[in-house]
Amino acid sequence: MADGPGPQLRPEAGLTFPPGCAYIGSQFVPMSEAKISVLDWGFLRSDATYDVVHVWKGRFFRLDVHIERFLNGIAKLRMELPFGPERLQAILAECVRRAELNDAYVEMILTRGTSPTFSRDPRDAINTFIAFAIPFGSVANADQMTRGVNLHVSSIPRIGPDSVDPTVKNYHWLDLVAGLYEAYDAGAENVLLVDGDGNLAEGPGFNVFAVNDDQVTTPDRGVLEGVTRRTALELLAELQVKAKTAPLSIAALKAADEVFITSTAGGVMPVGRIDGVAPSADAPGPLTQRLTERYWAKHTDPVWSVGVDELPTLDDWRRDD
Amino acid sequence: MADGPGPQLRPEAGLTFPPGCAYIGSQFVPMSEAKISVLDWGFLRSDATYDVVHVWKGRFFRLDVHIERFLNGIAKLRMELPFGPERLQAILAECVRRAELNDAYVEMILTRGTSPTFSRDPRDAINTFIAFAIPFGSVANADQMTRGVNLHVSSIPRIGPDSVDPTVKNYHWLDLVAGLYEAYDAGAENVLLVDGDGNLAEGPGFNVFAVNDDQVTTPDRGVLEGVTRRTALELLAELQVKAKTAPLSIAALKAADEVFITSTAGGVMPVGRIDGVAPSADAPGPLTQRLTERYWAKHTDPVWSVGVDELPTLDDWRRDD
Repeated sequence: MADGPGPQLRPEAGLTFPPGCAYIGSQFVPMSEAKISVLDWGFLRSDATYDVVHVWKGRFFRLDVHIERFLNGIAKLRMELPFGPERLQAILAECVRRAELNDAYVEMILTRGTSPTFSRDPRDAINTFIAFAIPFGSVANADQMTRGVNLHVSSIPRIGPDSVDPTVKNYHWLDLVAGLYEAYDAGAENVLLVDGDGNLAEGPGFNVFAVNDDQVTTPDRGVLEGVTRRTALELLAELQVKAKTAPLSIAALKAADEVFITSTAGGVMPVGRIDGVAPSADAPGPLTQRLTERYWAKHTDPVWSVGVDELPTLDDWRRDD
Repeated sequence: MADGPGPQLRPEAGLTFPPGCAYIGSQFVPMSEAKISVLDWGFLRSDATYDVVHVWKGRFFRLDVHIERFLNGIAKLRMELPFGPERLQAILAECVRRAELNDAYVEMILTRGTSPTFSRDPRDAINTFIAFAIPFGSVANADQMTRGVNLHVSSIPRIGPDSVDPTVKNYHWLDLVAGLYEAYDAGAENVLLVDGDGNLAEGPGFNVFAVNDDQVTTPDRGVLEGVTRRTALELLAELQVKAKTAPLSIAALKAADEVFITSTAGGVMPVGRIDGVAPSADAPGPLTQRLTERYWAKHTDPVWSVGVDELPTLDDWRRDD
């Protein structure tokens, strides 16, 4: 059963969990009961991949693209989803329905799982699927959406793409978390890491774009190929704005006319200051505003969105099986 | 209550968990019930540190050194253990007592935890402590201890030390897991990754040592400062064998007279072949044998070991508080 709206108590510590619904061990449970074994390699080795899609006004946005990336990551990690993409869609839709959320943050996860013998060989593990739907969350809060997020540029390099393939969405975030603390110490609100060459890479869960002389640039390597990044590039093409993926230097970022960041958690979000420098006077720049409007307008376009109630239910799926 | 010896059924999938005992949410539970929230940043961001100590014949080996490293990692990640080192010792000892294990693999973990508001700010999270004791496990099985482990040298670089501080023991293992699959494809049993300069780094949970002309070398950078690595260096000094931490090239490794690996999970373990080359005729070399014997002999030395029953109990700790 799903839990209704409102937070739930975590008995032992008096803490709360967000409202929502998770699917784990083939059961739907409230978020307070969504737990994995401490022996799961997804925890003990961070041996897992995931994807996050959002639901806005009752519609999934670009669900097909998120599922394609998730399945690609699973194949690259040599894991196996225990069912096909249709059942995956049905489970995600059921999480949202049971959570009774119109605007939701929906995560799908496949971990290496545990081995019946606790062998150290990943080939012995039974992969574990988990999904959950919780209220929609954003990298930028309402205040930051008005004045722009204040970013710090860290000298910490993002984990190199030769070590961990960034196109496989993963939970290797200790570099990003260290960067966040560095940003807080510097009086900023969020952080951008660099790549091995000292050019910009990405922040915790978001890509970055700089607008210089009507030309938009986003880093081309060592970053997650974000679905919102891809969407922004496609919408910029529709707006007939020149945009490219290419190395982006710190100097070019700080000299930009506008800077924005993109994430499924928040969409297109303005940047206010970068290490104290304000590219567009502590307010979203004109292109950032146009792009943001177009991005949200696309959420009701049936080409890029699908209603939660249009997706198959688990009963439909069982009949198809 | 602890679970007794013998595996436990995982009802939903018919899988088994190892016997043992975990401490989580201030309770002792059998391994089948040791679970963390899927919303814990220790899972969703791999934002956690840990340590593993072993118990051999009822005695913890170098517990103080493991605890010192664990506390150091916690401080570097700017987390807080909710109690002091004495209670930590008491909890670990209680896990082993309840698990009724003479030889145990004992893991202590501190995760960033969850935030009551599910905020993305790590400063809002309540750090979560977990510990568990399960049967002693080894990187090398009995057969491999006789003929040596067959290793593959991968061209995948270990996650760089500028990105993630390797002295903070962490779960960022996707590079190591990719290397393992590469090794299996090549017909080997385990893997060594290189560093950014193409010298050797480490394998999944172990350090590597090469013996060339009576001089022992283990990589000096970009590796976990393993307690067994440190122990091996100290024991080599006692044996009056020259040993140094320095860059170790693939060529030097393959030309070595003997190669061994070290881990809390197995101690000192011989390497049989490296990409098909056998440094010491598919058997532990003479120095590896001497070192292995001395290593296990130290497990009853009170300078480096302490009996599980000599450690405080939680009742003692409560009285001291």
